[in-house]
Amino acid sequence: MIAEIITIGDELLYGSRIDTNSAFLGNRLDGAGIDVRYMTSTGDNMEFMIEAISLALRRADIVITTGGLGPTDDDITKNAICKVFKRNLIFHEDILERLQLRFSERGLKMPAVNQNQALLPQGAKFLPNKTGSALGIIIEERGKVFCSMPGVPHEMRAMTDDELIPRLQSKLGNKVIQRHKIRTIGISEAALSEKIRPALKFAEGVSLAYLPSYRGVDLCIKGVGTITAEVESGVELLVNGIRRTASKYIFTEDDRELEEVVGELLLKNGLTLAVAESCTGGMLGSRITRASGSSGYFAGGIIAYSNEVKTNSLGVPVETINRFGAVSAETAKAMAAGVIKVTGADVGISVTGIAGPTGGTDEKPVGTIFLGLATTRSSTHRKLRLGTDREINRERSVSAALNFIRKELLGLA
Amino acid sequence: MIAEIITIGDELLYGSRIDTNSAFLGNRLDGAGIDVRYMTSTGDNMEFMIEAISLALRRADIVITTGGLGPTDDDITKNAICKVFKRNLIFHEDILERLQLRFSERGLKMPAVNQNQALLPQGAKFLPNKTGSALGIIIEERGKVFCSMPGVPHEMRAMTDDELIPRLQSKLGNKVIQRHKIRTIGISEAALSEKIRPALKFAEGVSLAYLPSYRGVDLCIKGVGTITAEVESGVELLVNGIRRTASKYIFTEDDRELEEVVGELLLKNGLTLAVAESCTGGMLGSRITRASGSSGYFAGGIIAYSNEVKTNSLGVPVETINRFGAVSAETAKAMAAGVIKVTGADVGISVTGIAGPTGGTDEKPVGTIFLGLATTRSSTHRKLRLGTDREINRERSVSAALNFIRKELLGLA
Repeated sequence: MIAEIITIGDELLYGSRIDTNSAFLGNRLDGAGIDVRYMTSTGDNMEFMIEAISLALRRADIVITTGGLGPTDDDITKNAICKVFKRNLIFHEDILERLQLRFSERGLKMPAVNQNQALLPQGAKFLPNKTGSALGIIIEERGKVFCSMPGVPHEMRAMTDDELIPRLQSKLGNKVIQRHKIRTIGISEAALSEKIRPALKFAEGVSLAYLPSYRGVDLCIKGVGTITAEVESGVELLVNGIRRTASKYIFTEDDRELEEVVGELLLKNGLTLAVAESCTGGMLGSRITRASGSSGYFAGGIIAYSNEVKTNSLGVPVETINRFGAVSAETAKAMAAGVIKVTGADVGISVTGIAGPTGGTDEKPVGTIFLGLATTRSSTHRKLRLGTDREINRERSVSAALNFIRKELLGLA
Repeated sequence: MIAEIITIGDELLYGSRIDTNSAFLGNRLDGAGIDVRYMTSTGDNMEFMIEAISLALRRADIVITTGGLGPTDDDITKNAICKVFKRNLIFHEDILERLQLRFSERGLKMPAVNQNQALLPQGAKFLPNKTGSALGIIIEERGKVFCSMPGVPHEMRAMTDDELIPRLQSKLGNKVIQRHKIRTIGISEAALSEKIRPALKFAEGVSLAYLPSYRGVDLCIKGVGTITAEVESGVELLVNGIRRTASKYIFTEDDRELEEVVGELLLKNGLTLAVAESCTGGMLGSRITRASGSSGYFAGGIIAYSNEVKTNSLGVPVETINRFGAVSAETAKAMAAGVIKVTGADVGISVTGIAGPTGGTDEKPVGTIFLGLATTRSSTHRKLRLGTDREINRERSVSAALNFIRKELLGLA
């Protein structure tokens, strides 16, 4: 099956928004064994939309659009769909009632413009939207599947995973696709590739892709074939080579994030955690508390952005800061030890550094970050030398801090 | 002049890389007064590339591709160009010499595969590449301009700004384009549209787009015409209508983020800020410290995820938590007042709530969030009723907290 993706919005054409929907959909369709050949972006313009949708319907089996389903005047995707499929918009009383309920549950009055969202092309099925007011639309005609979803990424993502992909999968044939993900942290894409390459054995139909991000490098293994046992053993062969050569960098082989893996390790060891953050300003705590069960092991901590807070709230001695600097192994360790005392947690982790873009010196250039880790018995540190981009340095420091805890708890340090 | 952008690479189609080149080019072309109507991504496949390029040449005056110009086997864009334009690849001795020099200057021997990069389609002009080995290609034929650039973002960006845009500008007429952005916070897209719509007057060539996100709704106004004064007055007319009806929601009319606007207000008033965060776990502090000058007004704060930290580090009375709950106006105010005492800051802001997905009750369902704001003289609070998605609730709480500070400092509360 061939699919084509169309993302809609003037803001995409003049570059005030980067299109992340196409990549998400491409990933999900590929995962379902559906080939994407073209992705197109066009503006909130009837003529361009009609041309793009019509062309896609000629050259693909599945056409998916995102964007232009909102309630305001510039949202005209439904009208374009009606022109392409020669259908009328039909008002759905039940959809309106559900919309009104959505608003009233939050104590809000539904704005009148939202009534538009109860209009659907004749004969279309709708896809529910868990987090927004715009419904998705599915039209099936002459063996083609056309689907239109809202452009708001989190709404589109949930709708794709919960509604669209299951429906498409039921239409697919007997191709066997197996995927396996190995998530690593603490090693660059190039170094990881050098390390694992000698051990990699590729059976037919098995491929490996590297997906680097600030949060580590994911290895995506894909096997395609017609016989399940063959596909599985090919994937297994490759996976084993990676495991044998890169085990200490692998934090999980499923979809869990590093903060969840660390959280589970803490829980298993019956330990609680607290943070002391300078340059990350709360980002580490924010990342830890993304996991909804984090109250089971996370106490909280101190955002010690100024030196006063470092000394007053964390008890870092003034002389430590004066002698070694606020960005130093000594201060990092004192911060981690301090936050244990203040919060009563079992493990303290700290971050202090020069995130940039200014503030560097010859001795401590921008990107110099110290992590401290303390228990009630001991303290240790790590030094990072990162780049010059402030936000990337902060993100990387947070990932490194989580990995520091992981390695300590696993005795990999 | 109409332009079309084509980005090439298998990794784009299966979503392992997000296409940022299209948005960059769209932005630069728009800035030069060139309309982009379609952006297409396709794979490293001869047939798909030829179809995409041929179609684009039919419907646009300017066609720009990125990707597939590297030296390895999967880089076949030049061959596709030769097929579309019916030309041969010609070897350029001078380009090879320059390539060899590039490598030898770095003390490297040029790999043999790089010789391919001295091949250009017959009659093409080349665009130099300051930071990489792949040259850009320009072909002009029958009034159309075709340009192919490398896919590596920083190489493509420098080539666009230094070489491509200056060449295109020399071909343009006297079209006038003006853009204006108005950024709002604290109101939904639909409610904003209802509020401003009666005041909107659209002169010819002037348009308005809504860009909603968790961080507020941006209004993008664009005016196009031939006479500067007319375009300006048309944009001004629309902008004035929006300002008149939505002024208290507008936090800026430039590219600044809300945290920067709040930071500048604090600086102007000579005030320092501290945070006390429960459910956001540090996300508010992280957002505030995205701004690189934030040490000028941000002291730090307490991540009071557990009740023990709320009482021990922030001094929230146990009886306040017992009587009203950790998620209450009273606790929020006590947290904000507490963090001022601990840090010595002038303004304290707190967040406590049920981010979800679990932990809600009938009285306080998931999405119930309290914000507290304290100065040394007084304290006040806001109650939010958000949705059920944990991460969205946290993001929205952070934006609402920043807006709370903004409104207090401006006396808009």
